Amino acid sequence: MFSATIEAKILQEAISSAKVLVDECKLRLDSDSFRIRAVDPANVGMVDLELSTSAFVSYESDGVVLGINLSRLSDITNIARSDETIDLEFDEEVQKLTIQAGGLQYTLSLIDPASIRKEPDLPDLDLPAKVVIEGRNLDQGIKAADMVSDHIALGVDPESQTFYIRAKGDTDNVQLELKQDEVISLQPSLAHSLFSLDYFKDMNKAIPKTTPVTLSMGEEYPIQINFPIADGNGQVTYLLAPRIQSD
Amino acid sequence: MFSATIEAKILQEAISSAKVLVDECKLRLDSDSFRIRAVDPANVGMVDLELSTSAFVSYESDGVVLGINLSRLSDITNIARSDETIDLEFDEEVQKLTIQAGGLQYTLSLIDPASIRKEPDLPDLDLPAKVVIEGRNLDQGIKAADMVSDHIALGVDPESQTFYIRAKGDTDNVQLELKQDEVISLQPSLAHSLFSLDYFKDMNKAIPKTTPVTLSMGEEYPIQINFPIADGNGQVTYLLAPRIQSD
Amino acid sequence: MFSATIEAKILQEAISSAKVLVDECKLRLDSDSFRIRAVDPANVGMVDLELSTSAFVSYESDGVVLGINLSRLSDITNIARSDETIDLEFDEEVQKLTIQAGGLQYTLSLIDPASIRKEPDLPDLDLPAKVVIEGRNLDQGIKAADMVSDHIALGVDPESQTFYIRAKGDTDNVQLELKQDEVISLQPSLAHSLFSLDYFKDMNKAIPKTTPVTLSMGEEYPIQINFPIADGNGQVTYLLAPRIQSD
Repeated sequence: MFSATIEAKILQEAISSAKVLVDECKLRLDSDSFRIRAVDPANVGMVDLELSTSAFVSYESDGVVLGINLSRLSDITNIARSDETIDLEFDEEVQKLTIQAGGLQYTLSLIDPASIRKEPDLPDLDLPAKVVIEGRNLDQGIKAADMVSDHIALGVDPESQTFYIRAKGDTDNVQLELKQDEVISLQPSLAHSLFSLDYFKDMNKAIPKTTPVTLSMGEEYPIQINFPIADGNGQVTYLLAPRIQSD
Repeated sequence: MFSATIEAKILQEAISSAKVLVDECKLRLDSDSFRIRAVDPANVGMVDLELSTSAFVSYESDGVVLGINLSRLSDITNIARSDETIDLEFDEEVQKLTIQAGGLQYTLSLIDPASIRKEPDLPDLDLPAKVVIEGRNLDQGIKAADMVSDHIALGVDPESQTFYIRAKGDTDNVQLELKQDEVISLQPSLAHSLFSLDYFKDMNKAIPKTTPVTLSMGEEYPIQINFPIADGNGQVTYLLAPRIQSD
Repeated sequence: MFSATIEAKILQEAISSAKVLVDECKLRLDSDSFRIRAVDPANVGMVDLELSTSAFVSYESDGVVLGINLSRLSDITNIARSDETIDLEFDEEVQKLTIQAGGLQYTLSLIDPASIRKEPDLPDLDLPAKVVIEGRNLDQGIKAADMVSDHIALGVDPESQTFYIRAKGDTDNVQLELKQDEVISLQPSLAHSLFSLDYFKDMNKAIPKTTPVTLSMGEEYPIQINFPIADGNGQVTYLLAPRIQSD
């Protein structure tokens, strides 16, 4: 049994954060949380999305796992006005999810969860460098990097207490440097890793621009990107594997 | 002789409502009204647009019929700012329509009205079910239907006093149900017909979202869609033929 | 040596005015002005852009000439928010231009100025007719002309004291006429020339819509288009060669 009511804007935001990485996923509806954990087909990016029941107007579940087509669910929720509420109801008998907004009712066929990739475990990583910046800073760095390269390096220089984003092109280079007093907080430690810019561009679509975003980094290690959604009643964590540095 | 002045916004709105169905049409300029009545090439959708002379700043005509390329006329009127007035003047001698806005003057060649399809008669239909809803409700139903199907069913259930829009896809279904208290007015009677969604999408481009729209329906019968334009000094009526129901 | 600080919005505006005509250019950084003078590959359109040092927050140069890829420079400056300031610094040793906005630093490789086309001399033309109009009037004339033709005629009729823009299509014609009291100022003299509309459309992208634009014209002569930028601390001059009139 699952039945819930939520503001359209919150559901739209939550679904979007998973949709940028995967097409299909398991939607895990526990009694105390709404969760998507999924890894992209190439095993490079992972998303862990959680909404607590306080993000909902009402929420009741005895623990079901639904197989979901995310772009389909995203299209439906986007038809609702952002200030409308959306009712979700799982009909066990016909194995369909009913989505209602205003007088509109959409009956979504579900995917057999067994046919969807297993949810990944969140690896226990030691990421000693941590910086909290505004989403729009990351956005600027990603857009500038995109002008010169397909890769982006992120790191922290503990000596100068600086967080940086760098991209090297054939002729031009880009660098975003934010010192201790230009970030919301910085826990310095030596960190530097190279990533595929495509994944950053995809994740950036879902990262809010005016929200504090926490980046946790190591040396040649995955980066963890974390930000709150639903006014703090939920959070999104991305984990991205590094590329081998060629230079 | 024809000479008139009208607010750009009103002319833009009026032309747009006909342009979504036909490329060329006869523009019938009677002494007391400005009228387009046309049927689309496939004989499925009909538009009847009327502006009374009160929609104009000034209007003088001794009754002429002009052959018009609608997308051309639409492009010209869209160059004017929406709060500018547009002067229209028909030059009988050279058979051209002069369109003036600000210092800009456009001389539009006319099409021989004899080469344009005959204006259809408005059929006298008995459409017993009638609902008045806001344009944005129709918009939502059309957009949702478009996610699952190429067809859209509209009808009224007199028992539950409900107006509905339905679309059935291969796996998913969509339904918009508006009860008596969720519509502006409802005159219930059994009605249900299936339509091509493409026509609804085209007409929807011209249907204002915040205006009451009247839908008149029957059983396996055409639907009539009616809404005021020009602050009530004009109106648009669409008539759409049903598709044969296969299920 | 060159080092300067400028509001992003002003630099964006200035670069855009040259970018619509040429891809690469020489950027002439004199001690008292920032200047681009370039002619398009077909030798039809010329741009002369000048910012005085008062357009800058700070400006220091001992006179250098840089070879610039304009679309690249434009992309970078557009990443800055329009109210941010941008720092420009030329590193003589590595022959690169560093562009900084916020924490973002872009290192732009320069082009050997010797490989860029020679800057044209501004011809000394006798253009007796002069009209000052708002940019949006020109915009309207260009857009309307584009509906009927690939060419645009501009001229002044000294008898009726009227500035006009005209375009003749196969069936339709367009004319924008502005009399003495509909323009900001008019210095009448017989003038009429035909131009390629493509160039006007390109230049129009950079011409501000709410700024007075000065057009200087002659008979079968180039047109000179002039407008202030950077709150009057700079100006752009376009010069466009006429087409031979075929009618």
